[in-house]
Amino acid sequence: MNSRQYATWWQREDLCYRAGQLFFADRAVRHLAAQLGSRSFVYSFSRVRENLNRLRQALDEAKLAGGFSVLYAMKANRFAPLLTRLQETGLCGIDACSPSEVELAVSCGFRPSDISFTAGNLSRADYEQLARYDGLFMDCDSLHAIRTWAQYKPGAKIGIRINPAAGVSREANTALQYAGNKVTKFGIYQEQFDEALATAADCGLTVSKIHFHTGCGYLTPQLEQLEAVIQRCLWFIERCDQLEKVNMGGGLGVPHDASDQPLDLHLWAEVLKRNFNGTGLHLEVEPGEYLLKDAGLLLLEKTMIEKKKDTLFLGVDAGFNLAPEPAYYQLPLQPVPLDPGDGQLFPMRVVGNINEAIDVWYDESWMPDMVGQEYLALINAGAYSSSMASNHCMRGQFKEFLLT
Amino acid sequence: MNSRQYATWWQREDLCYRAGQLFFADRAVRHLAAQLGSRSFVYSFSRVRENLNRLRQALDEAKLAGGFSVLYAMKANRFAPLLTRLQETGLCGIDACSPSEVELAVSCGFRPSDISFTAGNLSRADYEQLARYDGLFMDCDSLHAIRTWAQYKPGAKIGIRINPAAGVSREANTALQYAGNKVTKFGIYQEQFDEALATAADCGLTVSKIHFHTGCGYLTPQLEQLEAVIQRCLWFIERCDQLEKVNMGGGLGVPHDASDQPLDLHLWAEVLKRNFNGTGLHLEVEPGEYLLKDAGLLLLEKTMIEKKKDTLFLGVDAGFNLAPEPAYYQLPLQPVPLDPGDGQLFPMRVVGNINEAIDVWYDESWMPDMVGQEYLALINAGAYSSSMASNHCMRGQFKEFLLT
Repeated sequence: MNSRQYATWWQREDLCYRAGQLFFADRAVRHLAAQLGSRSFVYSFSRVRENLNRLRQALDEAKLAGGFSVLYAMKANRFAPLLTRLQETGLCGIDACSPSEVELAVSCGFRPSDISFTAGNLSRADYEQLARYDGLFMDCDSLHAIRTWAQYKPGAKIGIRINPAAGVSREANTALQYAGNKVTKFGIYQEQFDEALATAADCGLTVSKIHFHTGCGYLTPQLEQLEAVIQRCLWFIERCDQLEKVNMGGGLGVPHDASDQPLDLHLWAEVLKRNFNGTGLHLEVEPGEYLLKDAGLLLLEKTMIEKKKDTLFLGVDAGFNLAPEPAYYQLPLQPVPLDPGDGQLFPMRVVGNINEAIDVWYDESWMPDMVGQEYLALINAGAYSSSMASNHCMRGQFKEFLLT
Repeated sequence: MNSRQYATWWQREDLCYRAGQLFFADRAVRHLAAQLGSRSFVYSFSRVRENLNRLRQALDEAKLAGGFSVLYAMKANRFAPLLTRLQETGLCGIDACSPSEVELAVSCGFRPSDISFTAGNLSRADYEQLARYDGLFMDCDSLHAIRTWAQYKPGAKIGIRINPAAGVSREANTALQYAGNKVTKFGIYQEQFDEALATAADCGLTVSKIHFHTGCGYLTPQLEQLEAVIQRCLWFIERCDQLEKVNMGGGLGVPHDASDQPLDLHLWAEVLKRNFNGTGLHLEVEPGEYLLKDAGLLLLEKTMIEKKKDTLFLGVDAGFNLAPEPAYYQLPLQPVPLDPGDGQLFPMRVVGNINEAIDVWYDESWMPDMVGQEYLALINAGAYSSSMASNHCMRGQFKEFLLT
């Protein structure tokens, strides 16, 4: 074994090496790859359920005065078998952001009353389609949305998405900042909030929910930022007199590399309890990444290993268009050999088959020589991968499988 | 009129205001929008032909000793009616980068011998599919590719994609650098080139072409960089004794904002003549953006105009997933009103309907009040827009129309 340790920070009971073979959801991944072929996303429903249960347990233990609900952010992964099984658990509703998402969620068994809708810049056609779903809950993202929704649903209860002008982000990843110093399109700021409440009242709508979402992928070190954001949100909450719920959006993260520790859910729930318990409000959380990301692998075929100049490249038969987070957000999907072997390790740059400079899966991954290994796996491919895939270069072909 | 000039740097004969109405390809865009609806890409085939003719004329005037060919990089826009009409002109072949692209080009009337293929990390299945097309020309991107292609096409002529370890880029846009200080996956470096030639010889292949591609979107100020890259490529060319062609890839750009001037094609052709004429080689160019980008508009519906904090937002019913260049590459698609009016102008941030912070079409565009205007247009939407679109948030619906 090379002095450089093979990075296995991601190992856990249902994703680990057993007798020199990678196992996932109780399957030898080598067999999965041989059967399903390359460019296959495999999702472990057991892992999704575990993630959901862990989250719910932390919220249970916090004994929030107003109770809580979990709404799965389906933009993270809309694979129909997954949505169908999630609905069956009865443990979560849906956070949807387009009429087509609502339609798909309903097609998988969710009721409109299980769905909370949050998005901006809806067209007239969007409002018409959404208004057909009696029971769907609308979070209004603008004064314009309040006025328009009132035309379709006179007398309805609504949420208002607010913008606390402060955000939560990891490593100053500005691409993922939803709210901060720069004015964003999301929600209603303090400056316009009184007008929003007056508009809702004028239109005969009842503001029963405050919604905010201010970051992605946060872990324990970001909880201080999260608490500061929540405290800014209390200003909005205090100005509403018919409020029933507060929805804090999603953003709960998972580790992406060896230096990350999992989010401490107990500390997280303490933050929520400390700040929201006094309000008596029912709390909604909208996890996407947290439920799905570490429950998915992307299986790829090795195309070659070759030195270019002084760098060893490991090529695979799929590019960033199938999972854009590494290329566009610098969030790596660690490549993992199906057989780690016990020989020397080599630093490899793992790259795909798209003619673009950003098509790099991983800059330097220490890997075995891969001799005789046809496939490898990328971990953390369960969220914001297939759901954001494109057909760039006509390389959009992929398959998805729910492992149960 | 506000002291701030409305930005009409993009006006030209076939895209301009006539009597207060935007015209494109001799149509009032207002009528196009009313007929076709929102999220419609409209492409002017006349403009594409003009761009192609202008490019060919500059190359004609340079009187290159070995002649030239233009190969359209279809990854820029693969809309079938467009490919079909391009084939009919007889003025260009195809640069393809995946087996599915080859298949589509052939389905639109191109012959395999019209197609030059350049891509890395091909799978075994890719090679098998490509080998069926007799006459297809393969540029090998690695030693592995040389060895593998030889198994399928013994005795064939091939190209070698080389990496000159120097690139052309605008404004240090690192995301678009194909070759530079950092070792990239593209092509074969000086360090491995002798081995590549020996491998080809051993395998019985004839190296008849050198291919290089080192940047995107270059304009006149980058011609000096381009010349430096070409000079580095001459080192490779001199080492090949059966060469017939040199392919310099694409990368010719178009203006994206008022500060850009169009690429001076005369100067560009002079650079090529100065450096390649002595070689006697036939020159291939692979434009994508240059032929298509300014020949396309994206028509969108205005959803609202509303102040958030101190910023005026103009919302539209489509997001960055339909045209990723502004969000991912900071290449703006200027928003253009269909009626500029003659009243006050306002600075607006133009944003879409996707729940992501990067979903901004244009940071500050001075626009009329847009009262009574249902639609607007984004210019420069003809390339790397629809071809890279995704169904993120299930907002992937769009239509395409060829205007003839």
